[in-house]
Amino acid sequence: MNRGNLFIISGPSGAGKGTICNHFLNDDDVYLSVSVTTRNKRNEEIEGVTYFYDTVEGFERRIQDGKMLEWAKYGDNYYGTPKDIVEEKLNNGINVILEIEVQGAFKVKEQMNDAVMIFIVPPSMKELYQRLLDRGRESIGEINKRIDIAKGELKKAIYYDHIVVNDNLKDSVKKVRNIIDERKEKTNLISRLIEELE
Amino acid sequence: MNRGNLFIISGPSGAGKGTICNHFLNDDDVYLSVSVTTRNKRNEEIEGVTYFYDTVEGFERRIQDGKMLEWAKYGDNYYGTPKDIVEEKLNNGINVILEIEVQGAFKVKEQMNDAVMIFIVPPSMKELYQRLLDRGRESIGEINKRIDIAKGELKKAIYYDHIVVNDNLKDSVKKVRNIIDERKEKTNLISRLIEELE
Repeated sequence: MNRGNLFIISGPSGAGKGTICNHFLNDDDVYLSVSVTTRNKRNEEIEGVTYFYDTVEGFERRIQDGKMLEWAKYGDNYYGTPKDIVEEKLNNGINVILEIEVQGAFKVKEQMNDAVMIFIVPPSMKELYQRLLDRGRESIGEINKRIDIAKGELKKAIYYDHIVVNDNLKDSVKKVRNIIDERKEKTNLISRLIEELE
Repeated sequence: MNRGNLFIISGPSGAGKGTICNHFLNDDDVYLSVSVTTRNKRNEEIEGVTYFYDTVEGFERRIQDGKMLEWAKYGDNYYGTPKDIVEEKLNNGINVILEIEVQGAFKVKEQMNDAVMIFIVPPSMKELYQRLLDRGRESIGEINKRIDIAKGELKKAIYYDHIVVNDNLKDSVKKVRNIIDERKEKTNLISRLIEELE
């Protein structure tokens, strides 16, 4: 069995990357990586689905033991991507999607050189602004901060393998699915050529 | 004016990468990088077209002055890619294609992180073998050596951004042209989004 492939999905908040990723929840050949956090579990959340929950001591031990693909601390809480599950899924031929911000993305890419990086952008920044306003989760101050972050992230987007303009959700999901399938074809093609030589 | 983009083209000898590259000689927006070498100029060769010719001392000075994007020594002769011309073309909005073996390709990628890497493969290794036999330039021993090198290079192909199967020359040229155009679109898209924020 061929190893699965790793896909890193980033993009400004409000670009719709979470919604796109969630469309792969029912695909047997795709696993959406679940982060580990030290923040408290909220009532509606489910261990292993929304997050894996750990203590600060537990998380710091994971870091020391090299068990995190990447991690960051926001306020008092740690967030990060556990390495063992990602590796296990890949070894079982399952593709893994990491939805992750740009800095973490490059940390993962450094360790997993063959990861495919996908950047989701809105059709326009004006539309992004409107989407953030419409969903009404953040204050104007918070939205402006997110737009500033988006600007910094966009400058790194050129280093991503694919840019998907999220104009229409269904099309965007299809584009990401195509990227996953093309990658598999590419891996199979190279394996076949190498096998011919063995 | 937007900066041009850099494309690195590699692939086993006999896969047809040279022939594909030569199809871009007449395209105004593409420059095929010309290597510098210390080997003697042959009669039919033209300075600045087949190679730039330099002395060993001259070449070693270029290396010391950081003027080579990558270089290698085969036998007694140096070969390498001059940095200044590549930079000049890119700054003038011209796309640059480097036809280069795998090791050199990664050296360039390290320095020019946004380079797009394209790997040309034959439809099958059997066909590659046949092509090398047909062109009759190398002995069987030399061909077997090239096939061994090809095997090692194929293992690195997964780290390239694009794999082009060179089944039909015209199609392959079109595929490379598409990769160049898509890259431009990607760069323009990101520039537009960043501009919106400025």
